[in-house]
Amino acid sequence: MKGLYLVTDRDLCGDRSLEDVVLRSVKGGARYVQIREKDQSTRAFIEEALSIKEILEPFSIPLIINDRVDVALAVKADGVHVGQADMPYKMARSLMGPGAIIGLSVETWEDVEEAEALDCDYIGVSPVFETPTKTDTKGAWGLDGLARIRAFSRHRLVAIGGLNESNAADVAAAGADCLAVVSAICAAPDPEAASRELAGIIADARGRTDRV
Amino acid sequence: MKGLYLVTDRDLCGDRSLEDVVLRSVKGGARYVQIREKDQSTRAFIEEALSIKEILEPFSIPLIINDRVDVALAVKADGVHVGQADMPYKMARSLMGPGAIIGLSVETWEDVEEAEALDCDYIGVSPVFETPTKTDTKGAWGLDGLARIRAFSRHRLVAIGGLNESNAADVAAAGADCLAVVSAICAAPDPEAASRELAGIIADARGRTDRV
Repeated sequence: MKGLYLVTDRDLCGDRSLEDVVLRSVKGGARYVQIREKDQSTRAFIEEALSIKEILEPFSIPLIINDRVDVALAVKADGVHVGQADMPYKMARSLMGPGAIIGLSVETWEDVEEAEALDCDYIGVSPVFETPTKTDTKGAWGLDGLARIRAFSRHRLVAIGGLNESNAADVAAAGADCLAVVSAICAAPDPEAASRELAGIIADARGRTDRV
Repeated sequence: MKGLYLVTDRDLCGDRSLEDVVLRSVKGGARYVQIREKDQSTRAFIEEALSIKEILEPFSIPLIINDRVDVALAVKADGVHVGQADMPYKMARSLMGPGAIIGLSVETWEDVEEAEALDCDYIGVSPVFETPTKTDTKGAWGLDGLARIRAFSRHRLVAIGGLNESNAADVAAAGADCLAVVSAICAAPDPEAASRELAGIIADARGRTDRV
């Protein structure tokens, strides 16, 4: 996994539909899309996921569902992202099967160590910076924390939390394989342009890192 | 399916644990237990379901999970109960398999008609009476509505909503196979005695109905 990873927040989309924001972000260069919903009914979540899946399929962009393995199974999503308060990783793997993408958030160093024993597809370093869109976490990792995890972990790293155009290069340089972005895309006046800029920053930073 | 069906509400249990209330209700005669949780994390819901499952197994009482097919699959519950805003019935059946107990709430006459085409294990007539524990429904069926569904539907009927000692006999007489009870057990000073009384009322009413 490499590149820009969109995590949705319907409330931030304003008067645009989530489908519209997702489509524009993918056209701008997002390589992964995770739908995160906490307040919708299961049925509404499933309908939304089916609708986003249809948008992503022509682009071969994986659809990842936050937390809800039931929704992921119902819509045959490509994967799930689970946090430390969601379904335990091994149960999720068992239900989703060996081919699914499963990401796991790490919020403490203990989480990072425990993840070494798991065959997750990535760990979500969450949050890198403090962010108003997710308030149930245990404190930000910072660039130092991200670099420390990079030096320790065998897993691919998806950085999330407060990422935007101003810090994306530093985050990529600190070792993130993917940058997961919420408000800097969902709340952007032009989600396609914002995604293009972010994807470009990540590609440039990776180019530099690879040369080092 | 016949008899008393406990649907849990942790908030109503006061300073007793949900496990304690479930155990006492089962000792008093509850034949089915459905765990309903709307505000817990997925992980907490799974842990609770595993704990309740352990309590029920010695009694061979089926464990049914409200809405969350992911939780049901994770803990290998016996079934799920889905409402009209939850996972569509056919998806739930496909994920849970042919052997699972799947109940479906009907809130309108259209729901009742649609359920005729489905192989659900029961329909939940919801709510029979107005109730403060569930406020997202479309109006109470009443005893007349329940009797009308009984006359029309091929399915077993689980009545829910405002059921207690004072109306249980009438509800059973109107055609309910099972009486699903929330607050009259969870909030009862003695859940075992309350369950015993309700189970007795249902058995007596059924005896009378069967003689007619």
